[in-house]
Amino acid sequence: MIRIVIIGSGNVAQHLISAFKKSTDIEVIQVYSRSNNLDNSIISSEKVTNDITAIKEADLYIISVTDNSIAEVSGNLPFNNKLVVHTSGTTSMDILNNKNRKGVFYPLQTFTKGKEVDFKEIPICLEAQNEEDYTFLQKVAQTISEKAIKITSEQRKAIHVSAVFVCNFVNHLYQIGNEICMQNNIPFEILHPLIEETANKIKTLSPIEAQTGPAKRNDTETINTHLNFLSNETNKEIYKLLTKSIIDTHVKKL
Amino acid sequence: MIRIVIIGSGNVAQHLISAFKKSTDIEVIQVYSRSNNLDNSIISSEKVTNDITAIKEADLYIISVTDNSIAEVSGNLPFNNKLVVHTSGTTSMDILNNKNRKGVFYPLQTFTKGKEVDFKEIPICLEAQNEEDYTFLQKVAQTISEKAIKITSEQRKAIHVSAVFVCNFVNHLYQIGNEICMQNNIPFEILHPLIEETANKIKTLSPIEAQTGPAKRNDTETINTHLNFLSNETNKEIYKLLTKSIIDTHVKKL
Repeated sequence: MIRIVIIGSGNVAQHLISAFKKSTDIEVIQVYSRSNNLDNSIISSEKVTNDITAIKEADLYIISVTDNSIAEVSGNLPFNNKLVVHTSGTTSMDILNNKNRKGVFYPLQTFTKGKEVDFKEIPICLEAQNEEDYTFLQKVAQTISEKAIKITSEQRKAIHVSAVFVCNFVNHLYQIGNEICMQNNIPFEILHPLIEETANKIKTLSPIEAQTGPAKRNDTETINTHLNFLSNETNKEIYKLLTKSIIDTHVKKL
Repeated sequence: MIRIVIIGSGNVAQHLISAFKKSTDIEVIQVYSRSNNLDNSIISSEKVTNDITAIKEADLYIISVTDNSIAEVSGNLPFNNKLVVHTSGTTSMDILNNKNRKGVFYPLQTFTKGKEVDFKEIPICLEAQNEEDYTFLQKVAQTISEKAIKITSEQRKAIHVSAVFVCNFVNHLYQIGNEICMQNNIPFEILHPLIEETANKIKTLSPIEAQTGPAKRNDTETINTHLNFLSNETNKEIYKLLTKSIIDTHVKKL
């Protein structure tokens, strides 16, 4: 049995705790949380501590706190030469305090409170200072996911930036679509099949091949009709900039 | 048996022909195509004409050509008082020539050449000048889709603008993610589960609730790291603008 302590209690921490719970090879023996916001359905309260000096001996410590607290929290840990990893997409492995062995355990997914995800499909990007620790992290990752991948800190940063585009920014475009629908008494659900097909398409076509729409066709009449229709200035700016970028990619390069 | 003539041979026209082929209540008796780019697997060549005066008698004429050709093509039709509809998202019903009865038959989906779609799930936005024609269009739509919906020209324009945000612009963000991955020797496939979950999430959560990421948290350190990482100026502008828009929506309004 591999014994893990989770440090932090945010979205990623909670989803990791739930995922490890299903593994017969892993036991989350303790969670350190300053805010103590974990309810009993996630982990029993006697396993949660807010006293950093009370952290137990374990095989792996997973720090899952906000990026700019990682250095401080890892510095405050009351032990040495243990394997300590963080779960951040942007943060270099080096930021972890030198007194312990370092690694990264970054699950590439969007975690929302209360929305369960299938960990099996989630790529877990791993990094470690030495081969032995890497192999160990791989073993841990494989208990919950089929996609453990070795990724350098620099590559991980690129993945995280890409993830912001294909997830956070995409969701915000859904939000703008939702807003326009609501203003015109149209149920947003009417767009669900389109959203689903758009996401599905790029599994068999490259995004370049999958592109459709007025910008791709350089259809200035439709583009101008849409710009006149939009009343929100920011949405108009977003429309203009993304249209320009599509035209630059598809029309000007041909 | 309802007899339909399709006018046009682009993506939407081809997907409609294929969908109607599966219906036992509909027969596409003819396709008018100036370019004659349809191959035999879609429709047998003897059913295709490039002579507008040779268009046959039918119960419904579906014009599926580029938006700015609709008026001209509908004006050139060699008959009167028939039901003639277009398939455009942005174009008003009124643009159709007055000599025939007018309607709209707009399937809300992204159609890509060679990529089959399940029409059953596709909302078909319908409009007609009178109740009788509307009921007829509804009957036709229901032979291929479970989601025939009455939508006014003004609402349809709003839907089309929303569709550009949630489909065309979203796909372009996938393209930027792909580009960043390629430049850093990361397989784009690593992002597929994230893309899928992002699209799935908004079926159970509103996009406002589903939002995650550095902009939502107003995490300026990560945002600046990402901006420094991006070398392409347009991508940097897109990052800035969408981040600002997320902050305005989520942080400033709280």
